[in-house]
Amino acid sequence: MTPECTLQAANQVLARADALARHTDVPGELTCTCLGRAHLAVADQLAAWMREAGFDTVHIDAIGNVVGRYLARPGHASSERLATGSHYDTVRNGGKYDGRLGILMGIGLVAELAQRGQRLRHDLEVVAFSDEEGVRFGSTFLGSSAYAGRFDPALLERADAQGVTLRTALVEAGRDPAAIARAGVERPLAHYFEIHIEQGPVLLNLDVPVGVVTAIAGSVRRRLTITGQASHAGTTPMHLRRDAACAAAEIALYVESRCSGVAGLVGTVGQLEVPGGSVNVVPGACHLSLDVRAAEDTLRDAALADIEASIARICEKRAVTWQSQELLRAPAVACEAAGRSAWREAIAHRHLPVHELLSGAGHDAMMIAAIAPVSMLFVRCGAGGISHNPLETVEVRDVAAAFGVAHAFLTARHA
Amino acid sequence: MTPECTLQAANQVLARADALARHTDVPGELTCTCLGRAHLAVADQLAAWMREAGFDTVHIDAIGNVVGRYLARPGHASSERLATGSHYDTVRNGGKYDGRLGILMGIGLVAELAQRGQRLRHDLEVVAFSDEEGVRFGSTFLGSSAYAGRFDPALLERADAQGVTLRTALVEAGRDPAAIARAGVERPLAHYFEIHIEQGPVLLNLDVPVGVVTAIAGSVRRRLTITGQASHAGTTPMHLRRDAACAAAEIALYVESRCSGVAGLVGTVGQLEVPGGSVNVVPGACHLSLDVRAAEDTLRDAALADIEASIARICEKRAVTWQSQELLRAPAVACEAAGRSAWREAIAHRHLPVHELLSGAGHDAMMIAAIAPVSMLFVRCGAGGISHNPLETVEVRDVAAAFGVAHAFLTARHA
Repeated sequence: MTPECTLQAANQVLARADALARHTDVPGELTCTCLGRAHLAVADQLAAWMREAGFDTVHIDAIGNVVGRYLARPGHASSERLATGSHYDTVRNGGKYDGRLGILMGIGLVAELAQRGQRLRHDLEVVAFSDEEGVRFGSTFLGSSAYAGRFDPALLERADAQGVTLRTALVEAGRDPAAIARAGVERPLAHYFEIHIEQGPVLLNLDVPVGVVTAIAGSVRRRLTITGQASHAGTTPMHLRRDAACAAAEIALYVESRCSGVAGLVGTVGQLEVPGGSVNVVPGACHLSLDVRAAEDTLRDAALADIEASIARICEKRAVTWQSQELLRAPAVACEAAGRSAWREAIAHRHLPVHELLSGAGHDAMMIAAIAPVSMLFVRCGAGGISHNPLETVEVRDVAAAFGVAHAFLTARHA
Repeated sequence: MTPECTLQAANQVLARADALARHTDVPGELTCTCLGRAHLAVADQLAAWMREAGFDTVHIDAIGNVVGRYLARPGHASSERLATGSHYDTVRNGGKYDGRLGILMGIGLVAELAQRGQRLRHDLEVVAFSDEEGVRFGSTFLGSSAYAGRFDPALLERADAQGVTLRTALVEAGRDPAAIARAGVERPLAHYFEIHIEQGPVLLNLDVPVGVVTAIAGSVRRRLTITGQASHAGTTPMHLRRDAACAAAEIALYVESRCSGVAGLVGTVGQLEVPGGSVNVVPGACHLSLDVRAAEDTLRDAALADIEASIARICEKRAVTWQSQELLRAPAVACEAAGRSAWREAIAHRHLPVHELLSGAGHDAMMIAAIAPVSMLFVRCGAGGISHNPLETVEVRDVAAAFGVAHAFLTARHA
């Protein structure tokens, strides 16, 4: 593709991201949660663009995934599919590109192929997943789990903050809840690739437009409660205190230091609170959360073991107790070696610097990895790498670069 | 007084504390806040016990202080008064002895004198202050400030959580708000002494029943806000983070270490919170409170200066910013040397170990110090020294010891 072509395609992708961002549940924000009015409008718009692009079939499935299929060239109506996509829901007051960039790139790539009458060896599906963030019903990957035939029917009874269940919301949108489980996997999937903004500052700091994802980090999330002894801030001498907040502070700093300086490992205490704390009371309790992620589960679990030992040591020293509840344990997903190699070649083919990096965030590719090899291409973010925020940005030249790379990836491997 | 007499007096004090604790705004707790139904009932009960004890005059003033006067012996109707007392309001879900012990001891001491027809050189007033904790209207020392002629009329417009102003609450209780400012100080006060539970573990750990207070700590309270950069917990490498909670954690631990090992100094971070924190977001902000107290203001201010320097250093290192708001700055109040000496002699007279200690908590004596020399006697708490809590306890033998000491103090100095 010429620079003019990729720039034109990139401009259309960004214009479409702007157009989608006008649909929101909350005026003045970009909030698009599962099966709300904004969400239904976005699905319809995506389906319309797919038809316009020249997909052979377009449908919206029971969970709200918008699936466009661009058939293989005659004689290659193979038993295997190739797929790409990402999600079109957002977090509350999110950004325009998280998820949607990957969908719009997929639509743009098919438009580019269709315009030239070019067909691939495999059927290519572009999938706009309906819910990855899990904001409304508190469960992530609703869309991609259905697409992968891994949907848990128990989730139909999950209620939103207003008490509306997923089942009711589906029926109200004219969808058939029973059809979700049936959707399943009809044919083997040869490969799934996902193009996504990085949602972090790594490529920005390296001054590189795109990067190949090595793995999607496995994460463990826990909620900790430290229990000490509430006492009078004026009358309790320092050496007689059992201060739960000081214990939590020591733990937070240990997590930070243990996870620093180890490539591919991050650890975060995102929630920290003395419940009902008073200026003049030595904290008797403190809640904190723990999120540890790594490219490899062994790396993450080694850090967790050290953190646990440290918590035990800190709490014993301070004569406080602790309780820990595991909220999530997701294994790391390695991107397929052949897929990574193909992305590296496509990047080199476009004369761009080749850089590989870990995805610290979860993506639909994690779920699709249950049924197919996956790969991911990251596109550099602006604004310090901020995401899940209206400040999220991406440069048109980086989108153009990614478009050229993805086109090269598709045509080299699958044409 | 004989051991039998002091034990009998102590038993009555504890039985009366139990009786008062039955009046509560919240069933199942002991919550008695200014001008609530429980508060009005407690005032009436205290007035009744004062009359029964043999006080010459008893009245409830406009702010709700219950004032009983036991006149000097004939020929000594001096121009000066002696006073003792404490407060009868409680914190939410507080203990039975905080404040009330001192009032009931005063009533018991007058009953003892009256029973023997013994009069002092000065009129003795026992004052049950209506509001020291400041729970309902958010302003401490309402009772003792009125008694000291230091009541701020602007406080009449302070509203409680339901929007009821102090003025309205007074009128509804049949009191005259304008009379509070007029109450003032009618005659010089020669000395004010206050008997109070320690509300801490010092006497308990020393195995000593009573202690003489050297000073009431001066305190500074501040609210701090640390502002960093919220970012994705999975995608932001450790070295690119500006984590507000880790900065707050470092500050909390510095406060703890700076205030440890210095006699008469305490420092507390009682409130600590990442507002709207999420498990998977690096904290962009953190609120924390700071409470530093010391026997001497210079000691406290030296610690504060070091803490401030440390905050600046920590925040600079972490590329986060901070704001600080001072909520309170109360100077330390030294107890009168002559008063302390008189208490030490009274304790020695009762063959008890003499121990002096700082009061880390504020007391009505702080306010009365504006118009008279003050002294305080602390009584040992049980249960690890816990207070402001239903677990607050005191032993009858310690109350008996305190009763004997206070009787000795009164008769030696003022008879």
